[in-house]
Amino acid sequence: MSAGKLITLEGGEGVGKSTLAHAIVAHLRNEGRAVIATREPGGAPGADEIRALLVRGDELRWSRESEALLFAAARADHVHATIAPALARGEWVVCDRFTDSTRAYQGAGRGLASEKLDALDAFIAAPVPDLTLILDLDPSIGLARSGGAGRGEDRYERMDSAFHARVRAAFLDIATRAPQRCAVLDANQTKDAVLGAALDAIASRLGGAS
Amino acid sequence: MSAGKLITLEGGEGVGKSTLAHAIVAHLRNEGRAVIATREPGGAPGADEIRALLVRGDELRWSRESEALLFAAARADHVHATIAPALARGEWVVCDRFTDSTRAYQGAGRGLASEKLDALDAFIAAPVPDLTLILDLDPSIGLARSGGAGRGEDRYERMDSAFHARVRAAFLDIATRAPQRCAVLDANQTKDAVLGAALDAIASRLGGAS
Repeated sequence: MSAGKLITLEGGEGVGKSTLAHAIVAHLRNEGRAVIATREPGGAPGADEIRALLVRGDELRWSRESEALLFAAARADHVHATIAPALARGEWVVCDRFTDSTRAYQGAGRGLASEKLDALDAFIAAPVPDLTLILDLDPSIGLARSGGAGRGEDRYERMDSAFHARVRAAFLDIATRAPQRCAVLDANQTKDAVLGAALDAIASRLGGAS
Repeated sequence: MSAGKLITLEGGEGVGKSTLAHAIVAHLRNEGRAVIATREPGGAPGADEIRALLVRGDELRWSRESEALLFAAARADHVHATIAPALARGEWVVCDRFTDSTRAYQGAGRGLASEKLDALDAFIAAPVPDLTLILDLDPSIGLARSGGAGRGEDRYERMDSAFHARVRAAFLDIATRAPQRCAVLDANQTKDAVLGAALDAIASRLGGAS
């Protein structure tokens, strides 16, 4: 049995991560791969209960410390119950948001020190993604596209424009620091063009989806 | 304005912490002190929402890592929204469960390494209690007294007897290691006797409630 692979999709609000995730999963399954699609915050029954505390309600309902700890609690549950078992079965995991979102949103966005986020990463010991696709887009375009309010899940969309600018810059910085792991995709293209770029990255980095 | 004081009450299930907390608060208020009564998990609106995830449901619904992170998230919110502001106003805070419960339940009870709990303590930077009253009781007596099931809050009561024995031993170990901060009270006495011992400890350690 071949080893599983973890592919994460990252980026700001409305960049098209969930649409792209569905298309990637469909493509990989067409190739005959065993793939699961998951997302954060959430991705397991317990983590989904924590998600409700994070994506709804007042923007400043949590201190940045509480918020980061809630994300970490959800991630620990998600890894334990969903991601680690799938990887152990040799499956590919396509995950909409993961550890880089914590760096961008709680680190750059809310100003939590990177040493504090390092401590949470060490606590969880989450797997490092085999490939991270970072969808880059001007936040003003992304926020206009984003549909979180319709689901009542717009807590982050309602943050101010400086917050979203810091988040975008943080994702690009992550890609610069980890070029072996990350591929930046221009999200201001047609869905087919973004999917094509994503599949190219998967093929060249992981040797699948060719 | 005099400095605030943090008094925590600790111990296993059904040892009488909440009854004692009410009596201590009443006594301190009778002396003219400004006092707030609070508890964990909970003690602030956000933390109370996290509480519901922790005290209800299946015993093993959370991995020990997720559970400890949820307690830490609730504690960070509780400290930020309730305890630190009260101490800054010079008030006394009487808190039913605090950091020692995490050491006893998630550390000794569920086997999470103490270095992991140290990391969470550093992350939160919670205040160290001025006095911790540890109510000691045979778990078989405490569990017979305890009323969590009537509130649907019996997730910990349903842990097995070895778990509760480890929790009791852990609290006594904490008291041995931090004798300046901790006083052990025999909880197998009348409520009045336990209150008397608690007020003696407060008077001798903190100089109040004499």
